[in-house]
Amino acid sequence: MSGTLYGLGVGPGDPELLTLKALRLLRAVDVVAYPALEDGDSLARAIVAGHLPDGVEEYAIRIPMTVARAPAQAVYDVAAGYLGAALDAGRSVAVLCEGDPFFYGSFMYLFGRLAERHRVEVVPGVSSLTACAARLGSPLAARNDTLAVLPAPLADEVLAARLDGVDAAAIIKVGRHFPRVRALLDRLGLADRARYVERATMGTERILPLDAVESDGAPYFSTILIHRRGEAWS
Amino acid sequence: MSGTLYGLGVGPGDPELLTLKALRLLRAVDVVAYPALEDGDSLARAIVAGHLPDGVEEYAIRIPMTVARAPAQAVYDVAAGYLGAALDAGRSVAVLCEGDPFFYGSFMYLFGRLAERHRVEVVPGVSSLTACAARLGSPLAARNDTLAVLPAPLADEVLAARLDGVDAAAIIKVGRHFPRVRALLDRLGLADRARYVERATMGTERILPLDAVESDGAPYFSTILIHRRGEAWS
Ligand SMILES: C[S@@+](CC[C@H](N)C(=O)[O-])C[C@H]1O[C@@H](n2cnc3c(N)ncnc32)[C@H](O)[C@@H]1O
Ligand SMILES: C[S@@+](CC[C@H](N)C(=O)[O-])C[C@H]1O[C@@H](n2cnc3c(N)ncnc32)[C@H](O)[C@@H]1O
Repeated sequence: MSGTLYGLGVGPGDPELLTLKALRLLRAVDVVAYPALEDGDSLARAIVAGHLPDGVEEYAIRIPMTVARAPAQAVYDVAAGYLGAALDAGRSVAVLCEGDPFFYGSFMYLFGRLAERHRVEVVPGVSSLTACAARLGSPLAARNDTLAVLPAPLADEVLAARLDGVDAAAIIKVGRHFPRVRALLDRLGLADRARYVERATMGTERILPLDAVESDGAPYFSTILIHRRGEAWS
Repeated sequence: MSGTLYGLGVGPGDPELLTLKALRLLRAVDVVAYPALEDGDSLARAIVAGHLPDGVEEYAIRIPMTVARAPAQAVYDVAAGYLGAALDAGRSVAVLCEGDPFFYGSFMYLFGRLAERHRVEVVPGVSSLTACAARLGSPLAARNDTLAVLPAPLADEVLAARLDGVDAAAIIKVGRHFPRVRALLDRLGLADRARYVERATMGTERILPLDAVESDGAPYFSTILIHRRGEAWS
């Protein structure tokens, strides 16, 4: 009997935002895999560190931080080979995913390589999208609002077209794109509806007015929410 | 000392998709409130039924199912009055919210009435957005995809404009709008990228090709996901 691959959403950072299902599976699987930086640091592993069973096999997928895709693809090929063999041997594998696995998650790279030949179950997690809204203390979208999720690396024209007339939006992957995105929001007259949060729900969380973010200060784990127009939530 | 109001996301339906934080608060608060139908049925309560402490005070907010807004507003006014008085008396209150409280959740109506005068903490939950993708077994959005969330009651022109050129989309609140939305997706050439799921993660979940959904068969808890174009997740 071949094993199951679980894509485990572990939530946006606060270890208490783990689901009961993710916790149960984490304690039951044979292998726990997770993306890590080249120096070994892994946010996804840190989120569940308090729950990892003694002696479980851990497998760190060390993703090279280059713009070129080939080095990362090679790493995923190797990881898929290793984890695929574990599954073939009847072992169960959990891949830890920050937030939700299928919301812009790197889990897709293993999914793309393993889903055809293996049983895969995705366990949804609390995504940063709603965690950011919770921490900013204002509803993300309501009633018949349209909501756009937009990655900051997209070109200004694409972002502007998608922001035009939208009721609510989330700009993700802000990081080094922050100054450009702030200038764009200014130009579009959206700055007063925009709120910034970094590392939401983590110990190092910061919430700042757009003006107060240093131009080179936004980390990768930062999000800008454009809230719905402010009529009373009646 | 005045009490805290918690907006507790309880996830999309599977009781195991509750977070550890929601579970801890559920067991600690003095009053547990939840939206319910006029006959008393409450999905949010059903999700956590296995965890409700004996003897906790329950408060059902019975929402009249009318198109007119005034009757529901009157009910929220009464509920806010009752829960606000409990908070003033130093009691803590959890309002159960299906999915995530700030993702199109009715929690906003209590939030709008109580947040100015009371301490409010929102506990994000697993939203149906990512739970539907998990159950459909295909990534919702990846890399620099744009993603649109669109309520089905919007007019065809609005939906068509927002769907134009988007990489991925979720159409929510489908229900009785299903036949119109299906016809629209056909017209826009998006039907082959669209997947339908109802009551995702619940015991009564159904996943169907668009063609197989009866014209009057889509319940309120149904979602259509338009997936990203299918290049390999490499
Ligand atoms: C590759 S996406 C992965 C998202 C993740 N799968 C999820 O469901 O939240 C990474 C982006 O999500 C956003 N993000 C993730 N966690 C965050 C957090 N704790 N606070 C703020 N933004 C976060 C940031 O915009 C970041 O650049
Ligand atoms: C008023 S919105 C509330 C969404 C909720 N707050 C959340 O975070 O998922 C209700 C809509 O969400 C979608 N939805 C909620 N739960 C669902 C489920 N279990 N399966 C499919 N769709 C669901 C449906 O489109 C439904 O009409």
